[in-house]
Amino acid sequence: MKKLWGGIFQKDPDVLTQEFTASLGFDRRLAPYDIAGSIAHVKTLYKAGILKRDERNRLVSALERLTVSLRRGTFQFHPECEDVHTAVEYALGKKVGTLAQKLHTGRSRNDQVVLDMRLYSKDAACALIGGVCGLQRSLIAVAQRYNDVIIPGYTHLRKAQPVLFAHYCLAYCEMLERDKARLNDALKRIDVLPMGSAALAGTSFALDSAYTARLLGFARVSANSIDAVSDRDFIIELLSALSITAMHLSRLSEDLILYSSEEFSLVSIDERFCTGSSIMPHKINPDTLELVRGSAPEVFGSLITVLALMKGLPLSYNRDLQNDKKALFYSCECVQTSLALCAKIVATLTVNKKRAGEMLADERLLATDIAEYLTKKGCPFREAHRVVGALFRELRTKRRTSLGSLSLKELRKFSRYFERDVFTLLDVKRSVSCKETASSTNPVRVKRALTRWKKALS
Amino acid sequence: MKKLWGGIFQKDPDVLTQEFTASLGFDRRLAPYDIAGSIAHVKTLYKAGILKRDERNRLVSALERLTVSLRRGTFQFHPECEDVHTAVEYALGKKVGTLAQKLHTGRSRNDQVVLDMRLYSKDAACALIGGVCGLQRSLIAVAQRYNDVIIPGYTHLRKAQPVLFAHYCLAYCEMLERDKARLNDALKRIDVLPMGSAALAGTSFALDSAYTARLLGFARVSANSIDAVSDRDFIIELLSALSITAMHLSRLSEDLILYSSEEFSLVSIDERFCTGSSIMPHKINPDTLELVRGSAPEVFGSLITVLALMKGLPLSYNRDLQNDKKALFYSCECVQTSLALCAKIVATLTVNKKRAGEMLADERLLATDIAEYLTKKGCPFREAHRVVGALFRELRTKRRTSLGSLSLKELRKFSRYFERDVFTLLDVKRSVSCKETASSTNPVRVKRALTRWKKALS
Amino acid sequence: MKKLWGGIFQKDPDVLTQEFTASLGFDRRLAPYDIAGSIAHVKTLYKAGILKRDERNRLVSALERLTVSLRRGTFQFHPECEDVHTAVEYALGKKVGTLAQKLHTGRSRNDQVVLDMRLYSKDAACALIGGVCGLQRSLIAVAQRYNDVIIPGYTHLRKAQPVLFAHYCLAYCEMLERDKARLNDALKRIDVLPMGSAALAGTSFALDSAYTARLLGFARVSANSIDAVSDRDFIIELLSALSITAMHLSRLSEDLILYSSEEFSLVSIDERFCTGSSIMPHKINPDTLELVRGSAPEVFGSLITVLALMKGLPLSYNRDLQNDKKALFYSCECVQTSLALCAKIVATLTVNKKRAGEMLADERLLATDIAEYLTKKGCPFREAHRVVGALFRELRTKRRTSLGSLSLKELRKFSRYFERDVFTLLDVKRSVSCKETASSTNPVRVKRALTRWKKALS
Amino acid sequence: MKKLWGGIFQKDPDVLTQEFTASLGFDRRLAPYDIAGSIAHVKTLYKAGILKRDERNRLVSALERLTVSLRRGTFQFHPECEDVHTAVEYALGKKVGTLAQKLHTGRSRNDQVVLDMRLYSKDAACALIGGVCGLQRSLIAVAQRYNDVIIPGYTHLRKAQPVLFAHYCLAYCEMLERDKARLNDALKRIDVLPMGSAALAGTSFALDSAYTARLLGFARVSANSIDAVSDRDFIIELLSALSITAMHLSRLSEDLILYSSEEFSLVSIDERFCTGSSIMPHKINPDTLELVRGSAPEVFGSLITVLALMKGLPLSYNRDLQNDKKALFYSCECVQTSLALCAKIVATLTVNKKRAGEMLADERLLATDIAEYLTKKGCPFREAHRVVGALFRELRTKRRTSLGSLSLKELRKFSRYFERDVFTLLDVKRSVSCKETASSTNPVRVKRALTRWKKALS
Repeated sequence: MKKLWGGIFQKDPDVLTQEFTASLGFDRRLAPYDIAGSIAHVKTLYKAGILKRDERNRLVSALERLTVSLRRGTFQFHPECEDVHTAVEYALGKKVGTLAQKLHTGRSRNDQVVLDMRLYSKDAACALIGGVCGLQRSLIAVAQRYNDVIIPGYTHLRKAQPVLFAHYCLAYCEMLERDKARLNDALKRIDVLPMGSAALAGTSFALDSAYTARLLGFARVSANSIDAVSDRDFIIELLSALSITAMHLSRLSEDLILYSSEEFSLVSIDERFCTGSSIMPHKINPDTLELVRGSAPEVFGSLITVLALMKGLPLSYNRDLQNDKKALFYSCECVQTSLALCAKIVATLTVNKKRAGEMLADERLLATDIAEYLTKKGCPFREAHRVVGALFRELRTKRRTSLGSLSLKELRKFSRYFERDVFTLLDVKRSVSCKETASSTNPVRVKRALTRWKKALS
Repeated sequence: MKKLWGGIFQKDPDVLTQEFTASLGFDRRLAPYDIAGSIAHVKTLYKAGILKRDERNRLVSALERLTVSLRRGTFQFHPECEDVHTAVEYALGKKVGTLAQKLHTGRSRNDQVVLDMRLYSKDAACALIGGVCGLQRSLIAVAQRYNDVIIPGYTHLRKAQPVLFAHYCLAYCEMLERDKARLNDALKRIDVLPMGSAALAGTSFALDSAYTARLLGFARVSANSIDAVSDRDFIIELLSALSITAMHLSRLSEDLILYSSEEFSLVSIDERFCTGSSIMPHKINPDTLELVRGSAPEVFGSLITVLALMKGLPLSYNRDLQNDKKALFYSCECVQTSLALCAKIVATLTVNKKRAGEMLADERLLATDIAEYLTKKGCPFREAHRVVGALFRELRTKRRTSLGSLSLKELRKFSRYFERDVFTLLDVKRSVSCKETASSTNPVRVKRALTRWKKALS
Repeated sequence: MKKLWGGIFQKDPDVLTQEFTASLGFDRRLAPYDIAGSIAHVKTLYKAGILKRDERNRLVSALERLTVSLRRGTFQFHPECEDVHTAVEYALGKKVGTLAQKLHTGRSRNDQVVLDMRLYSKDAACALIGGVCGLQRSLIAVAQRYNDVIIPGYTHLRKAQPVLFAHYCLAYCEMLERDKARLNDALKRIDVLPMGSAALAGTSFALDSAYTARLLGFARVSANSIDAVSDRDFIIELLSALSITAMHLSRLSEDLILYSSEEFSLVSIDERFCTGSSIMPHKINPDTLELVRGSAPEVFGSLITVLALMKGLPLSYNRDLQNDKKALFYSCECVQTSLALCAKIVATLTVNKKRAGEMLADERLLATDIAEYLTKKGCPFREAHRVVGALFRELRTKRRTSLGSLSLKELRKFSRYFERDVFTLLDVKRSVSCKETASSTNPVRVKRALTRWKKALS
Repeated sequence: MKKLWGGIFQKDPDVLTQEFTASLGFDRRLAPYDIAGSIAHVKTLYKAGILKRDERNRLVSALERLTVSLRRGTFQFHPECEDVHTAVEYALGKKVGTLAQKLHTGRSRNDQVVLDMRLYSKDAACALIGGVCGLQRSLIAVAQRYNDVIIPGYTHLRKAQPVLFAHYCLAYCEMLERDKARLNDALKRIDVLPMGSAALAGTSFALDSAYTARLLGFARVSANSIDAVSDRDFIIELLSALSITAMHLSRLSEDLILYSSEEFSLVSIDERFCTGSSIMPHKINPDTLELVRGSAPEVFGSLITVLALMKGLPLSYNRDLQNDKKALFYSCECVQTSLALCAKIVATLTVNKKRAGEMLADERLLATDIAEYLTKKGCPFREAHRVVGALFRELRTKRRTSLGSLSLKELRKFSRYFERDVFTLLDVKRSVSCKETASSTNPVRVKRALTRWKKALS
């Protein structure tokens, strides 16, 4: 095994131990960050007078060539290396010989791995913000395309009140906007350079961490070396933000699976995002959305993994911390793909206007409007609620479907506040238009919101 | 059962259903917020011309009296009310009669309960920030009291390098500072008024939500009514922040339990925070810290509860959401108490200087300094690491305890870079002082940090 | 504070510490078990010659009176007692004076609390098994009531194949049967007496644990005292079993919420298990089922709490273990009530036969039967699948709804294996009857299964 | 993309959808089980008269050749296949041409994947039981090797009472024995054949599932086809059992990390299971144990993933279920390796007898024995507890270390029950030997237990 330690050891490590402790299988994702960090470290060593100009140049040049081979897919991860740091130092040695032995001066894998994870997390968070914007754009586009369509709004999966389809879409835009805000807030705490902390106490080399931070584009430098190597808050915070995003996507998936079912038939999902059955020839199943919904629990699992991992660990670094990696990598990758797929599915969604119209024929959707009507006529709201409840109970009992089939006289048996104009309420367009509050589904408000969103996302 | 609905129902609810769906047992914590929200709602109804001045005055006055009775502990939660909203409306009815029937105009419990939860969360987050500051102050105080004490720093629970005890304390201050930042970021998304959203579509009453927000001190108004009643992100975000804080406290607890064990004997915990055994008369156990450590999993459990609760829920409101409450209340209360107890325990901590000195006698703590010394003499770091490893292996094999017992000649068998001045390294004070980086345990740096913290927290 | 220790302490405990470490608020549920355990302990002390006959009699009699007062609700839990054990010993002291000081001979709270938790868990597991049987009986009853009703079976929430409603109900009976088996398996590991283990090492009193086990009805005695006081496996195992049960109930709830939606209209839920809206007068919402669905995450949260609690705890007892209690109590209570409510809801369910018939009119439900028909005629299944897929694609493209509207000639363009008898397939009754496998929805098989279940549950 | 469906589709699947829904990357572990299941399926088809003898022979022979190529590592998983089932059917087609099109007769991937997962789970559970036995054997061996060593037993990480090191080891044997029992119980519910259930309704081919079960060695056949394809209880149950095992290993790891720390120095871990530091040349860290401890949270995360995945899923099969696979595979592999490593580490553990002796010099370890002594002399236990507490408080206050330094007269100031023979208590060997209860650390009992274990595990 290639390793960065061993002088004090009298025996070679057990083979199963080598396999079990090795992380190269998954931490190779960190290679570009490890190399970038090493380049900055070399420059910092030079600035501190620890490397000569020539040494710096040879090391930087060799590391840059490693970056190129990584991009080209020709980088050799030596399978005997226990981790990405060892693999990079080993590959560097192949290029520059014993000079590579100077690379690790003034740093430890304890601060180095945090650096790599922070660089990865910055990239991932930025890419995720981009993915969220992509889905928002799809939502705006479909909302725009069907901007005059009214659908039943649901509470408790029961028809509640008419709402604009666009208003429904914008609800998800709002959720996603918070997701971006959380990612941006997480970035503030990700964007901290841990170098200079070495193992846990700092180093006796006069490394200018502020300079390293500038080279790597970090906003700040860790203030405390013990904290710098022990801290995984930034990973938990990213996983928390991703858990909420994944939860949002699971709700969107659930809605679309329901709305596209034969029973609802309110929307259609493009069949490019569906798959079939190996036995039932007629099946066109919304598998992609089901897997998006089923990804949220994986992200929750990763979050709880890292929290339980950290629970009760003494300071400073413990090897348990290695198990933060798979949890983070898979969650970032999974949510990123889910966002991209949802964006595609939403962008190609078809809304069945005719079916929406049929669903809205149920006058109970207007019950609240009628209660508010009575209130405006002078009836206290709580009483109006009772009156309208009783009215619909009567219709239900007598299996009469329409309020319009009642005469004003019949209505006035329920409440003296009913007047002739009550029948104008039986119109779903009027229902959405009569809404007056800022966050409501009033078409004027929704149109304004759409314009605002388009501008913000362009 | 007292309830705010029922007109359409033909049967009374099943008794077990009433018990199971009732939330008054735990949501009574929301009563002060529910009343405050109702006062602002009444004023908004008046501004919109829905209530007359006299009606407003009677309602506000009665609600204010309810607040007073709540504070005095004389408020009667009618046990037949299913939730806090019903209990408040019922109590109001007892004071103002049928006028109370006008209170619920233009709002739904769907937006009302979110309002209450947001007001609660704002208060809780602010109190938690105060609690975090309190613990930071204790840490600074004890760091100051023992500002010249050096202790062994640990990685993998093995002695690593000497660090200042104050530097160790400041590591926790850094963690806690991030906790505050996260709570402050969460507050930005908590601080949003959901009123005007009513059930899910908004309302036909022209309620000025911006006015309501001003009355209640909210920074913003919800932009989308469907989102407003479906969203529990702010609760999950608060639980995420609390999970990290609870995790930090579990690590502090673990450290203090370890360091105060008979085997470490590095610190003593005031016995006022310990309890004894019912059978073993000699026991003085660190129960408080164990329970703080054991509280973190409870907060993690609450976080996963609310995430799994939301997974796959269709929009908008579903009754499942009720199960966010106990999770939030207990977690806030538990972390708040844990913070207060940790603050007290840290403030009364005793550090055993003599024992610290004994623990530092192990020269392996200086191995890294020696490797860095060799590097400064010209030996590439990777080789220096091997040399020092081999040196300590030799000492270990020959059961020689001190490097100081070797002659320079013997040392030079390991590396030609050793010179006479190597023996000056065998001093832990020198070890911390020689650290050069910004985040290091160098006493000058630590002193500066202490001063900065004291100022920031005063 | 009343406490069972203190001799070695020089100071009184901090007030907040007392509050934080106290468990009487929730562990009072253990009082009947604590007293029963104490009675058995007294008898065991007598058998070992540690108590005199008269002492035994006075103690047993007083403890029995405590049990009576507990049942009557007149037992006084002294609020200053830190836990249920202290409260019982204190109450005993009020009855028998200093003799109560002999009660704790040869035991520790470490083994005593495990005893109490095991007795509680036994009772809870048995009650839960009863609750599961109750729900099974309801399922059988409703299956019997609608034993000839065919409904669409779903995969991916898309209509798949016709199945008997009774077959669907029996699927849940199978799940619940496994739940019972798991609870019974858990009982084997719950049913172990920990007494005799004392603090962790056993005791020098010659207590006959086998005798204590007989008195309390335990099947076995702990084999190792260190394990006996450290082990909480039985609680985790019970929470695992409950998590699966709660998950099953969440699926049943989801199904019933969906099937009773206006869009499916396949079943109706009795309105006694629904509640209404405070603003929308027409709403009849399936709140009970939503809360059952939303209870599963609470049980999952409790499970993860206890697992994370135990992670990395050194042997033997640590105070962290106290946090197993709320997790267990709430989960048992919550699942028990959920089972009872589901039993009531299922028992009163109405199936809408007419609507079922309409839903089955979709001939795609028979696509698989047609493919199997072709296979029986000699067409390899994979080809038959393609043929039938293409056939339904054609119908879909041409917006023709019925296969019956095609001539045999037209059909044979798709496959030469089609013959005249293909049209007999277009009958859902035939579809269920033609199923041949043991686990299938064939009415003969289902009827047999129903008979078997009725017998097993009677 | 190679797929088992598509006839009804008009468009090809989206590329990202193909990648996202593909499972071949991880479900290839199922290939041997998929082939074994297919062989049994072919034989069952033949028995039902659906395949001719010649067809059966050709298919079985080709499938057996695939098994061989799999074992040899030459099996070609065609990268365009979406899952293992498709890959196997595709590979079969390469060998037998169109005959392969008959393989999928009377089955669906819905029952097939459950079959594969059940076969995998059976193998995994059996292997895990073997792994648990291996660790138990190591524990017995080390207990035997140090069978006369007494160590301090801990509660709250404070010295409690002397216990035999062997007794401590046997505590873990007990825990592991329960782990085996749980795995065996889980096996009962794993050991069920789902075939014959097809998509969800059964099939019209007269497949004899009991025959298939015999061929594959299953104890039972699924009773209900809808349940058969929807059920993932067996996976959750296995993950629950593994979570508890992983938790046990995390406690063992914690103990060994603590006991091998410089401060405890009670045991030494063979350095083959340790790794070093990249910067600190002296470090020999217990990384393997730290990673074992850090594996438990990963298993917990997998458990919560599958529970949250299933929450609220309607019957029957949904694609979300695919996400059970990685959770199960990684957890089985991880715990299996952890068990093997712990077995090696325990087998090579060294106990430092001299250090154990020093640690036992603390007379407080005997406080409980003294209280029990007083009780035997007639002092009620609660009073004896107070007396001994006060006695040790006095010693502590006066900084006197040994009870032996007090005269009997001095002792009798604390209690008149003290007699000359009290001084014989000051002996740890006597302390363990005086224990009388069945589960106690009494050397006679422990020896007997050791013998019993050795026999059971041989």
